[in-house]
Amino acid sequence: MTIPIKDPRRKRELLKLLQKLGLADLSAVNWSLLNLALTHPSISSTDNYQQLEFIGDAVVRLASAELLLEIYPHLPVGEFAAIRSILVSDRFLAEIAEQYGFEMYLSMTPNVRVDKYGQVSRLADAFEAVLGALYESTKNMDLVRPWLDPILAEKATQVHADPARQNYKDALQEWSQKKYKLLPTYKVQQNEVRDNENERFMAEVWLKNQLLGKGKGATKKASQQAAAKDAFYQVVADSTSRNQESSEINKIS
Amino acid sequence: MTIPIKDPRRKRELLKLLQKLGLADLSAVNWSLLNLALTHPSISSTDNYQQLEFIGDAVVRLASAELLLEIYPHLPVGEFAAIRSILVSDRFLAEIAEQYGFEMYLSMTPNVRVDKYGQVSRLADAFEAVLGALYESTKNMDLVRPWLDPILAEKATQVHADPARQNYKDALQEWSQKKYKLLPTYKVQQNEVRDNENERFMAEVWLKNQLLGKGKGATKKASQQAAAKDAFYQVVADSTSRNQESSEINKIS
Repeated sequence: MTIPIKDPRRKRELLKLLQKLGLADLSAVNWSLLNLALTHPSISSTDNYQQLEFIGDAVVRLASAELLLEIYPHLPVGEFAAIRSILVSDRFLAEIAEQYGFEMYLSMTPNVRVDKYGQVSRLADAFEAVLGALYESTKNMDLVRPWLDPILAEKATQVHADPARQNYKDALQEWSQKKYKLLPTYKVQQNEVRDNENERFMAEVWLKNQLLGKGKGATKKASQQAAAKDAFYQVVADSTSRNQESSEINKIS
Repeated sequence: MTIPIKDPRRKRELLKLLQKLGLADLSAVNWSLLNLALTHPSISSTDNYQQLEFIGDAVVRLASAELLLEIYPHLPVGEFAAIRSILVSDRFLAEIAEQYGFEMYLSMTPNVRVDKYGQVSRLADAFEAVLGALYESTKNMDLVRPWLDPILAEKATQVHADPARQNYKDALQEWSQKKYKLLPTYKVQQNEVRDNENERFMAEVWLKNQLLGKGKGATKKASQQAAAKDAFYQVVADSTSRNQESSEINKIS
């Protein structure tokens, strides 16, 4: 399943994109796969980026996990998950794709091109598909990590340095979805008696009938993030209580 | 972050496990990493399988995607997602781990070992961590796919041959979680006027205020699976409506 490049202009276009990414050795690139990765389903319902996107979605998860383990070998698992959930998010991947002008290289019909609402989604999909094509070209990370690592590392460092950016809510959601096929729910209350503004809201996070964690914050959102972080440390990361907690949840679900 | 093996019995144990898996060339294996992958958080809150599990979770996603693309290059993306969601599920991974007796090789405290409720979760975690350790040993799939492929392929073939096994609900959930951080909801009704038993229940699947798909079935569950499949073909896989649909959802969310 590939799309051979017949038009020499297309090959030059794709070459330009890879040079922008900063790939030094292009001899290993499978150009037909790369062309497929940059073909939107509106062009062909069978030969398009959708299958490679599945590969790429796993490639970016793997590259992120490897990088995080290399730069933060002792990071608690909750922070690891919180940072990775940002690195693999559609929003961040679309942002990278936009910076490299992927929109220009993606074959799509004119009515799709003008659809601004779908842009983040299609940029993220195409970006993942390109990662898939590059991985499949060599069956390892040789064409991926050399240029992607610095981008992921910069974002990871930003997120790690500023705890408010760490998205414990997303990470907790990913965890509960994986383990129990359920999403956590949040209950937020105004805190009438408080010492300072950072305790204005109190949030609880629940999974079915199980209280996972509690948190306070100056805003509703901040209190939810604090509760999600608490949940991570209570249930997910805390090694001793871990099995009892998961047993509880197994019993009720 | 590794755990060097000091006890020669431990090395012999791990060697036996790899031989059971059917790994021919063991010279590339990083034994300290493998030991870490088979160390439960109850033994050490810092040096345990949790970080490698993050790597392995991506490794099994990637191996599954590659295998499915190889054996079913023209599979519609909905089926691709439905089959993969089963291959990467904790339940299936724990099943493989159990067959190879992972429980025996996993270092854990006695109170964890007797906790039967937590068993599926810890077997799946340890299995993913071992995949992570093997991937990290060579930085490619050389120690993973040769023995894992036949296991994944057998399951994939079973699931593909029997459409009732295909888990469109899980696949749709994974998709909506990734794209919108939301889970779909189902509405099921008894069908009073019907031609046959296979139309006894009618299900609708919704994402927020958006109807994604409809389906019928002899049981509630079957009607929900049919609705999820319909949703996949309507929203996710249908190339022309895709961007409009996602626009609608972006507008309402």
